[in-house]
Amino acid sequence: MIGIFDSGIGGLTVVRELLKHQPEAAFIYLGDTARTPYGNKSPETVVRYALEDAAFLVQHGATSIVIACNTASAVASDELRRAYPNLPIYEVITPAAQDALAVTHGRIGIIGTRATINSKAYENILKSSSSFVIRHSKFEIYTQACPLFVPLVEEGWLKDSETKRIVRYCLAPLRQAHVDTLILGCTHYPLLAPLIQRFMGKRVKVIDSARSVVTRLLAAGPLKTGEQLYYLTDLLAHSEDIARKWLGRSVHFERVKF
Amino acid sequence: MIGIFDSGIGGLTVVRELLKHQPEAAFIYLGDTARTPYGNKSPETVVRYALEDAAFLVQHGATSIVIACNTASAVASDELRRAYPNLPIYEVITPAAQDALAVTHGRIGIIGTRATINSKAYENILKSSSSFVIRHSKFEIYTQACPLFVPLVEEGWLKDSETKRIVRYCLAPLRQAHVDTLILGCTHYPLLAPLIQRFMGKRVKVIDSARSVVTRLLAAGPLKTGEQLYYLTDLLAHSEDIARKWLGRSVHFERVKF
Repeated sequence: MIGIFDSGIGGLTVVRELLKHQPEAAFIYLGDTARTPYGNKSPETVVRYALEDAAFLVQHGATSIVIACNTASAVASDELRRAYPNLPIYEVITPAAQDALAVTHGRIGIIGTRATINSKAYENILKSSSSFVIRHSKFEIYTQACPLFVPLVEEGWLKDSETKRIVRYCLAPLRQAHVDTLILGCTHYPLLAPLIQRFMGKRVKVIDSARSVVTRLLAAGPLKTGEQLYYLTDLLAHSEDIARKWLGRSVHFERVKF
Repeated sequence: MIGIFDSGIGGLTVVRELLKHQPEAAFIYLGDTARTPYGNKSPETVVRYALEDAAFLVQHGATSIVIACNTASAVASDELRRAYPNLPIYEVITPAAQDALAVTHGRIGIIGTRATINSKAYENILKSSSSFVIRHSKFEIYTQACPLFVPLVEEGWLKDSETKRIVRYCLAPLRQAHVDTLILGCTHYPLLAPLIQRFMGKRVKVIDSARSVVTRLLAAGPLKTGEQLYYLTDLLAHSEDIARKWLGRSVHFERVKF
């Protein structure tokens, strides 16, 4: 059974992608809504939370781990692999970076939370890819933290004029830099993808890290079918509504205390 | 020694108000930055966090507690009083409601986080005030959750045009309702007070809950002078910068793990 965790419900974009390909896949999802968000916290704190999240999933029968949260992927992947050396651990950074490298002409933009951007996780993976360096002897990476995007998505402000203005404001430096590929380095951002694509222009290739990680998961072999369990560390009245809207199906969240 | 806690650094608006009147007051401040914000969490979770925060302050010598967080004041005051029956416990809701009642002509607006607004804490206190009911046989209370204000303040977007638009959008129903008094029911909001006052108009009386609670604290008797200690549950690079900007003095934050 796949174990998927996120700082909150944003990681349901990974579940959505998974269900598109395998509607009956067995998985357990944990959203740490009692401590959300992770993107404005220190690496040390995010590592501690990620280890607790993974321990919960493993105790509940997970045989592989998907870190659906870009922030946790950026700062806690190594610690999780050290803690669970025999478990396949999928993080969202490497797949998205690889997908960006496959299509870019050499100008890559990355947006994410402040913690993800500060970690330089995407930049490090992009820069260490030798095939990329060979193809593009001169290449440029542009990063931009967009800390307001997560609250806007969580409030459901997906198409409002204020959101459009904030998207334009935050992405203006990347558009001016003429990036040809843009990595959505946060699981919430796919919900703003239409606004982002419109502002950046049709020719910019937008890479959705949720889609990238699910492609790798499916490539690793056929998924077991079975139970689909959803856990949250805090329950809010509107969580199930949002989940139904995002996933197009009813979801029952079980509350778990850490 | 006064113990002051908040979900994060927003409660420093209470410290700022306190220092204006008694720069040498002895206090211990705790900001739960590892689990911030509280305003989007369930009452049950906020109560648990508030009890842990208060326990820390008491263990470190606090002889009174100031709940600088409106959300925690709204949902956890009763539980804190039950847990510490012999300790003076100041919350921000009652003082701000009283100050609003003292000046209103009968149309009160309240803004806060979703948790504060949903709790109806302000409404309950306002409605139970018999002197108010006698003075205004017909009175109206208008509430509005403004969940985007906290991230805007925390990102330092205090005067940006996007912030102005969001303030206008969120407050429009209260302006249309012709409220004559507006309670800023969140410790972050005083930092948006200039924008809020401008949009609502000069004649609207803006009540700052940080100022209201400090007035009550000073009225209770002379404050002891002595050490001023600042603790956070998560340390970020920019926390001390923000604190210096808000307080006009250097602050050293000590990290504490829960």
